[in-house]
Amino acid sequence: MTLPLNPAMAATFAPPVMEARRWLEGVSFPPGRPLLNVSQAAPVEPPPEGLRRALAEAALNDPAAHLYGPVLGLPDLRTEVASQWSAAYGGTIAPEEVAITQGCNQAFCAILATLAGAGDEVILPTPWYFNHKMWLDMQGMKAVPLPTGEDLIPQAEAALRLITPRTRAIVLVSPNNPGGVEYPAETLRAFFELARTHGIALIVDETYRDFDARSGAPHDLFADPDWRGTLVQLYSFSKAYRLTGHRVGAIVADRAQLAEVEKFQDCVAICPSQLGQIGALWGMRNLSQWVAGERDEILARRAAMNGAFADLPGWRILGCGAYFAYVEQTSGIPSPELAKRLVREAGVLMLPGTMFMPEDDPRAARQMRIAFANVDRDGIANLARRLTSWRS
Amino acid sequence: MTLPLNPAMAATFAPPVMEARRWLEGVSFPPGRPLLNVSQAAPVEPPPEGLRRALAEAALNDPAAHLYGPVLGLPDLRTEVASQWSAAYGGTIAPEEVAITQGCNQAFCAILATLAGAGDEVILPTPWYFNHKMWLDMQGMKAVPLPTGEDLIPQAEAALRLITPRTRAIVLVSPNNPGGVEYPAETLRAFFELARTHGIALIVDETYRDFDARSGAPHDLFADPDWRGTLVQLYSFSKAYRLTGHRVGAIVADRAQLAEVEKFQDCVAICPSQLGQIGALWGMRNLSQWVAGERDEILARRAAMNGAFADLPGWRILGCGAYFAYVEQTSGIPSPELAKRLVREAGVLMLPGTMFMPEDDPRAARQMRIAFANVDRDGIANLARRLTSWRS
Repeated sequence: MTLPLNPAMAATFAPPVMEARRWLEGVSFPPGRPLLNVSQAAPVEPPPEGLRRALAEAALNDPAAHLYGPVLGLPDLRTEVASQWSAAYGGTIAPEEVAITQGCNQAFCAILATLAGAGDEVILPTPWYFNHKMWLDMQGMKAVPLPTGEDLIPQAEAALRLITPRTRAIVLVSPNNPGGVEYPAETLRAFFELARTHGIALIVDETYRDFDARSGAPHDLFADPDWRGTLVQLYSFSKAYRLTGHRVGAIVADRAQLAEVEKFQDCVAICPSQLGQIGALWGMRNLSQWVAGERDEILARRAAMNGAFADLPGWRILGCGAYFAYVEQTSGIPSPELAKRLVREAGVLMLPGTMFMPEDDPRAARQMRIAFANVDRDGIANLARRLTSWRS
Repeated sequence: MTLPLNPAMAATFAPPVMEARRWLEGVSFPPGRPLLNVSQAAPVEPPPEGLRRALAEAALNDPAAHLYGPVLGLPDLRTEVASQWSAAYGGTIAPEEVAITQGCNQAFCAILATLAGAGDEVILPTPWYFNHKMWLDMQGMKAVPLPTGEDLIPQAEAALRLITPRTRAIVLVSPNNPGGVEYPAETLRAFFELARTHGIALIVDETYRDFDARSGAPHDLFADPDWRGTLVQLYSFSKAYRLTGHRVGAIVADRAQLAEVEKFQDCVAICPSQLGQIGALWGMRNLSQWVAGERDEILARRAAMNGAFADLPGWRILGCGAYFAYVEQTSGIPSPELAKRLVREAGVLMLPGTMFMPEDDPRAARQMRIAFANVDRDGIANLARRLTSWRS
């Protein structure tokens, strides 16, 4: 006897990061060559001591830290996001236009559930973020791939040709996961105009906004009073404040849509973690200087990646920014096979392009994602040495 | 310009608890008659100091408390649940048959998403738990109501007549929310046999198991090696350990189904809150005596409810247990109207039966749910006094 199985769920692929972890099973890494794990975008250090103390203090002495809170998040945190975003983007965002979720993945699931149902279509540039594809698959929605060119930047004109009466949204991730590229403001504007013209949503996932190499706002869409009704922004507190284990993300959207998000969140979350929200709020109020330092370090690592790969035979960087380098390799070995061999033969774990692309995309076998932000500059030099000596 | 709207989401009702909170807006409660809030099943006190200290200690000194963990939860917590459950239910449950979720509501959403898709049917006894109905509605699934009689206990024979080729699951909540009744072991056994015979899932939500008035296991289903493939159990750590704000729940199901749950959780959660899990584990290892005292107090409040309502003109208890009394009122005022009037005229907030029933169910207008566990015995006496004097 087996339980019934939703065919859409059965057809959804398994979590790539968990699958990659299984490649490590039974592999021993010699002391002189420990595992270099560049598979997941995840800080490996805890948050700074001040934030940890704030969490500990709340856990001990703030009864509300243990009780249910509002479905869409703590009012103070929603207000802080609205205020800092309004300043950063030169626009007007009200606290009621911000919702807090249990992480940014959930933010994506929640907003999609309000926009579309089974049979509807959502346009995703490729390479895509695998959890976006998974959610669409299990919900019976159709992910429509929008291939990008050599520069990994999607083109609004190409997206136009993919719009059908069933299209409900276009999803952009900038800075991009897995591509590492920062979309130009004009690109985001062109997609915004396209979405607005066709009455569909433009979802911009800005999980990595705090590590954008550019100064100033990455786009001017919030400065447009007409952002409401077209634009949805997603954000994660996980990376900037090292809060991955607390699960705190955000959605910026108009009030009417957030009333629908509230239904989804009431079922899937009831409320976000109170301690996670307390940590995120403390970070926003106290860590801007510290985050600026983190960004400097990530940008230095990015420079190190570009330097180390500039002359690396058989490897070429296509995009490099935020936490990721997206690379092409010319070994002739298909990327899923190469990924497993690199674990055993070079002590390096990275994800193959097949995890970010439709099965029939010929680029997938040549491409890999390297989450370089998790290793320091020495580690990046080490990575390059290992790839060089593995090849020879 | 407005964002696209998923019709299934639009047709889903708004969160009842949030709606009820709005009834409080603009109402002032005199000092001598503060609000008696019996609308939500939520502890109003923080967890005991030992648990709070364990959380604070982890926040300060355990780096892993801030980082991503496994999608299906901390291995130690899964092992602890498996071990305590195996002993409590006289069966065999492996750690790999336990998944940890961001609360029990999410556990329900996750398991349902693996079992059924849009157009499929799920049988829910009425009165039902509103978040179950909401999730089915927004997912395009059909909630098939199974009316209960005066005793609020569902009958397997009646459920048999509702099974169609699209039926995927029957959902039971015991002890029941909102009904307050504890389902007899034979009832659960009869539903298990029914589900097994028809190849559908029996989901038993045991959120309130720690407050069951009966001693010993509430059912013998886990003692049956054939539980796998038919039975799914849901649990919440929120009530026993006062962790509502941390969002920790659990699913017990066979491994194959949990591999599907892992896909859903990877998208919706990535992982449960690490601190929440640390708290739940600490509670399971250290608070069994304390929880027994909590149960005694809830049972004393239950006795107080039964006593206070025994001679209360115009009110009759239909079910009373766990955190809830489900009552019938004979004022002739429809329950949604009565609920709002009681806020203004008696300073009491309770939820109307219409929130737990299909619109066309004639019982809904007469019935109300009272979450009595949140108020002490004096509060319960006070509640009865206010209802008496309001009436006269």
